[in-house]
Amino acid sequence: MRILYHQPLSPFSRKVRLALKEKGLDFELRVERVWERRPEFLALNPAGQVPVMVEPDGKPYADSMAIVEFLDEVYPDRRLIGFDPESRAETRRLVAWFDQKFYAEVTLNLVFEKVNKRFYGLGNPDSGAIRVGKQLIGVHLDYIAELSERRRWLAGDEFGLADIAAASHLSCIDYLGDVPWDAHPRAKDWYVRVKSRPSFRPLLGDHVAGMPPPPQYADLDF
Amino acid sequence: MRILYHQPLSPFSRKVRLALKEKGLDFELRVERVWERRPEFLALNPAGQVPVMVEPDGKPYADSMAIVEFLDEVYPDRRLIGFDPESRAETRRLVAWFDQKFYAEVTLNLVFEKVNKRFYGLGNPDSGAIRVGKQLIGVHLDYIAELSERRRWLAGDEFGLADIAAASHLSCIDYLGDVPWDAHPRAKDWYVRVKSRPSFRPLLGDHVAGMPPPPQYADLDF
Repeated sequence: MRILYHQPLSPFSRKVRLALKEKGLDFELRVERVWERRPEFLALNPAGQVPVMVEPDGKPYADSMAIVEFLDEVYPDRRLIGFDPESRAETRRLVAWFDQKFYAEVTLNLVFEKVNKRFYGLGNPDSGAIRVGKQLIGVHLDYIAELSERRRWLAGDEFGLADIAAASHLSCIDYLGDVPWDAHPRAKDWYVRVKSRPSFRPLLGDHVAGMPPPPQYADLDF
Repeated sequence: MRILYHQPLSPFSRKVRLALKEKGLDFELRVERVWERRPEFLALNPAGQVPVMVEPDGKPYADSMAIVEFLDEVYPDRRLIGFDPESRAETRRLVAWFDQKFYAEVTLNLVFEKVNKRFYGLGNPDSGAIRVGKQLIGVHLDYIAELSERRRWLAGDEFGLADIAAASHLSCIDYLGDVPWDAHPRAKDWYVRVKSRPSFRPLLGDHVAGMPPPPQYADLDF
């Protein structure tokens, strides 16, 4: 059986979970307390980060994008990165937008401050960082609105990895109740469509100990 | 003619320059002062970052990894990412290692502090950050040594994008004279081999105004 080591509020883990589900591939999910730096886990991924996927033949794969590219090559039935080089470049550009820009400007300022810092024993959330994250998320919701006005999904007419990457980050912020959906109705329309996909359902059941999500987190009609 | 917008000490720009040269593809290099946020440049890449490649048909491509994946798909003659899914996953894992982990731990602490901060008008270098960067680079040089003991090049027996990504970051740090080569002879052996490739030569001629490189930067026998 394929194993995926993850953390519930790691957007990179969520990206791989969604990709596996969209492709209809089975896997067993294991929570990895990355902050414990378990030697057996470091042997699978010296970077010490989730996600790590171990294929049924025992081979480990690390880095969320390397994993999804691998899955799209080995299981091409339900392509997530696109078909022609130009649309694949656009998908990868947008994945990088969310995994790098959104991550640095929003995810780190909100999820890292409010959740991970506690596990790493790094003290209290920095209220300045949280303010910055809440301010910058608006730019990204506007960009999602702009893209989904021009196209059916973020990178083109097909649902794909750009939508998965964006929703992976946003769903973590949504778990904290920090997405101002009401001020961004067009981005919300896109998220409603992503959230109602069967692949998304397991994420809506995630729970972090001592930190329950707000009621609308799992609500498809929020 | 293909155009590449870049910055001399942007490791991500260097990655694309090296990839284009390795593939024997012609391009015109244009320096983009990203901190000026030129509207015409933002129209090419709303993230406002280099590199941006404009193909001869006028289509812009952004994000260094999306660009190199595109080049490897459209010009497959000299493959840089690998041939089978497993070796491609290993190349991508290592590219992510350098573009994310090395970047956050070393490049940002040294290149951003010493060079970019000045252009962005963000004040003086933070000596604490510089100390952290100089301390953490050793871990990465050890990792390069470990990989190149097991394999001819970082990701396998063929020179490829993992070597290019690692050398792109290290060459920027080397421009500042901050790589402790003498303490890491095995990593140096690998870098000597990369540095002597014809694709690398143009990088050794780079100059940042008011900040000349140390003599050994362009020296193949350093």
